[in-house]
Amino acid sequence: MMNQETWQTAITEIHPNEVRLRGYRIDELMGEVSFTQAIYLAIMGDLPTPQVARMMEAILVSSIDHGATPPSALAARTAASTGASLNAAVACGLLSINRFHGGAIADCMLMLQKALGSGSLDEDSFGEIAKTILDDYQRSKKRIPGLGHRLHSNDPRTEKLFDLAAELGLSGQAVTLLQAIQSTLATSGKELPINVDGAIAALLVDLGIPSPLANAFFFMARIPGLVAHVYEEQTREKPMRRIHPSAHTYDGPSARSLDKS
Amino acid sequence: MMNQETWQTAITEIHPNEVRLRGYRIDELMGEVSFTQAIYLAIMGDLPTPQVARMMEAILVSSIDHGATPPSALAARTAASTGASLNAAVACGLLSINRFHGGAIADCMLMLQKALGSGSLDEDSFGEIAKTILDDYQRSKKRIPGLGHRLHSNDPRTEKLFDLAAELGLSGQAVTLLQAIQSTLATSGKELPINVDGAIAALLVDLGIPSPLANAFFFMARIPGLVAHVYEEQTREKPMRRIHPSAHTYDGPSARSLDKS
Amino acid sequence: MMNQETWQTAITEIHPNEVRLRGYRIDELMGEVSFTQAIYLAIMGDLPTPQVARMMEAILVSSIDHGATPPSALAARTAASTGASLNAAVACGLLSINRFHGGAIADCMLMLQKALGSGSLDEDSFGEIAKTILDDYQRSKKRIPGLGHRLHSNDPRTEKLFDLAAELGLSGQAVTLLQAIQSTLATSGKELPINVDGAIAALLVDLGIPSPLANAFFFMARIPGLVAHVYEEQTREKPMRRIHPSAHTYDGPSARSLDKS
Amino acid sequence: MMNQETWQTAITEIHPNEVRLRGYRIDELMGEVSFTQAIYLAIMGDLPTPQVARMMEAILVSSIDHGATPPSALAARTAASTGASLNAAVACGLLSINRFHGGAIADCMLMLQKALGSGSLDEDSFGEIAKTILDDYQRSKKRIPGLGHRLHSNDPRTEKLFDLAAELGLSGQAVTLLQAIQSTLATSGKELPINVDGAIAALLVDLGIPSPLANAFFFMARIPGLVAHVYEEQTREKPMRRIHPSAHTYDGPSARSLDKS
Repeated sequence: MMNQETWQTAITEIHPNEVRLRGYRIDELMGEVSFTQAIYLAIMGDLPTPQVARMMEAILVSSIDHGATPPSALAARTAASTGASLNAAVACGLLSINRFHGGAIADCMLMLQKALGSGSLDEDSFGEIAKTILDDYQRSKKRIPGLGHRLHSNDPRTEKLFDLAAELGLSGQAVTLLQAIQSTLATSGKELPINVDGAIAALLVDLGIPSPLANAFFFMARIPGLVAHVYEEQTREKPMRRIHPSAHTYDGPSARSLDKS
Repeated sequence: MMNQETWQTAITEIHPNEVRLRGYRIDELMGEVSFTQAIYLAIMGDLPTPQVARMMEAILVSSIDHGATPPSALAARTAASTGASLNAAVACGLLSINRFHGGAIADCMLMLQKALGSGSLDEDSFGEIAKTILDDYQRSKKRIPGLGHRLHSNDPRTEKLFDLAAELGLSGQAVTLLQAIQSTLATSGKELPINVDGAIAALLVDLGIPSPLANAFFFMARIPGLVAHVYEEQTREKPMRRIHPSAHTYDGPSARSLDKS
Repeated sequence: MMNQETWQTAITEIHPNEVRLRGYRIDELMGEVSFTQAIYLAIMGDLPTPQVARMMEAILVSSIDHGATPPSALAARTAASTGASLNAAVACGLLSINRFHGGAIADCMLMLQKALGSGSLDEDSFGEIAKTILDDYQRSKKRIPGLGHRLHSNDPRTEKLFDLAAELGLSGQAVTLLQAIQSTLATSGKELPINVDGAIAALLVDLGIPSPLANAFFFMARIPGLVAHVYEEQTREKPMRRIHPSAHTYDGPSARSLDKS
Repeated sequence: MMNQETWQTAITEIHPNEVRLRGYRIDELMGEVSFTQAIYLAIMGDLPTPQVARMMEAILVSSIDHGATPPSALAARTAASTGASLNAAVACGLLSINRFHGGAIADCMLMLQKALGSGSLDEDSFGEIAKTILDDYQRSKKRIPGLGHRLHSNDPRTEKLFDLAAELGLSGQAVTLLQAIQSTLATSGKELPINVDGAIAALLVDLGIPSPLANAFFFMARIPGLVAHVYEEQTREKPMRRIHPSAHTYDGPSARSLDKS
């Protein structure tokens, strides 16, 4: 009889001199699969196809950093400035990734999943569906998640993600529907670009990622950026400085391209 | 004249419709470099060589999860069990990665860096250096960081990391010195294996990663594992259960290998 | 003209050699008001009456600790065991105070506030109201917040809080309604005591505290208990021990009473 | 025989219908002791004398808030602005209370404890001791902890704490020594006031509080202030605003005094 307190886990099996992640020996995975493939395996339970793996690499790269103004970077730097350890400062940044910062991905996924339902829809009806969604949002005076950006009128990350998805054969009905929503809105006179959150949301829906994991894919991508900010704060700035949220300038490497590197 | 509150950052440059990470357009990086390469770029300031990139992939994969007994997994699950959001629960896990959990990497790096100094040493002297280090630790009755494991007498991750480093031409004096320390101790009758923390420490020293970043490379690797544990807790367990720290069994996918996948 | 980035705060005014909390010089408050009165002032904007102050002292004392089994104590100890700093370990405990741990206070407040509405009700109708509430919860198969306890069939803290509220003239319709719900359920054959969360919830409603602050009153009370647990872990236990969630015994001071102290 | 995993705690004993904090029934403490007395009991193991209790109330009140510029308030507001829950936002503030924010209390305690040693010193020697300490700090070019303030040339909280300590008969050698250090420095031409951190440090030493708890007494005091800031942010501001660290004005209650309240 199993003790009442014994519980089960399906993630990792540990034996002396053997560690298996979702069934695979971790030393077999090392050198054979990328970190991104291992992330997918750890969370989703199986290795991604090569196409999905490449898509996930691009999604994670797209969100690794967005400069020093996002609240997650500011919260992490603020904690670091008081003498917090690296992990505690990054934890502050992580605690600042919520509904209004990164959260548009989950909101947009829910909007798309609700409209798409479980079955495959006739794409001829997408114009109608888009109109209904837009009417709903207009009535409730809510912003449509995934559209518009404070700074980018034509987010280069969105275009790249959609191009890559098409190339890899991974673009599905969620991408099509979000584009229909965007163009229907544009036809009505309001030109709002699909932002990177919207693009990631549509792709995660098409890849079958559950929406409660949306925030995780964003913060896993952003944490290395937060590490860079905290380390820069610790090595470059004096403690307890006043951190202005936008009055900073970039003085890193000049513009360069992979071709020349 | 620059305003007193204006500050500089060398990580990411943002302009309308242009995001540059350490000088590279992020949409150029997407699809071309892996997430791991982008992590290295964000934190170290330049792209890794292909060899270093492959080594970093393996290092990050090696530490992605170690089951449900490490305190970071338990702290994250405990928070999740009370209804914490995914990011708050993972933050609890992150706050539990410190000196005694993951911290051996930094301690071992410091030990190796101190012994190696700045210049290149004659490896004939490594036996002597190892003896001096072991004497110091014995006198102060401290444990030698990077040696020994509660469970693994021959950690498969260590062997894989060292093999891969040799194959990629990245194994340097830190690896050699740590192996000298291990074998000198074994000769004196105490057989302790180099554990995965020690292997990572030696490789990070040979790769030129600063020791204050040791903890970051461990927690960046482990966070996806924490996401998997929190999500499993949220989807599989009842709230407010008593989480026994070791009485759990694995019921995930059976042992499998990449060959058959 | 006010700069776009200038913002307002109504909490504390700082001038050279003058700190005013909600209008009062902090050095005038020191020595004159208790910490609890200052807490109330800081959060609610005005000093409490002497009766409310005494009630708040008792509410905060009631929740200061509940031993080593609650998840907040376990999460804090788990982090401390890895070498987390005192504040980081307490932060882990704080992050584990959520909907299922302490959260019954907010849920019970919402239930009572919804039933009581804005106006004063005829207490003759409370039996009917209680019946309607109980029917609703039974239909939706939810647990009634504020009733029942895993361990205490007759929580001594509940009785004390209600006695004190009556003595201080602070017991209002929320207390009466919760008692009506409890007795109506008991009449139907299900004897569940009002637990300390329920008692605090009813009192906070009668004191006019907004329900979004419910969690804060619980965690402000519990943080000193978490400090005690973390400090005990740091000073009494070895790092990285396995912390069994319930297999612990008490070895502190013997039972004593204020009379003899 | 005791199970290997069973452990001991000396804080709280729980039995059905009985909760005892350090030996006292919690329902007996409620209504009889203040929250501050219970805090002292929980952490120090015994109830404070009435004099110590009054001193602790004043210490906790002194640090409850210092406006919106301290990094703990800014980090908490930044997290709140992204949609963090109340406890997660306060956790961000708590994680920002470290060596450079609140940490002067611990540093000053260590300086005083080191100089005072274990025995009672002849106060005639304090001028000499002060001179030695000042020479040490000057040589190592470190700032003397507990002296000086960015804003307050004569901190009203310091004077009040010392007056109250004298009145209650609690002012001891640590207070005398810190004052000797301050006046010796002033004689040498550098007039730096004892700040509130220094005053609290000296009093905690004279009260016999261990220095590893210094940070806890500061953050327990400050957490209600952080709750006020987070709640104000949540109820008064729009999400994702840019929070300027100093461009804010006070618009709360006008200056008032207890006499008129």
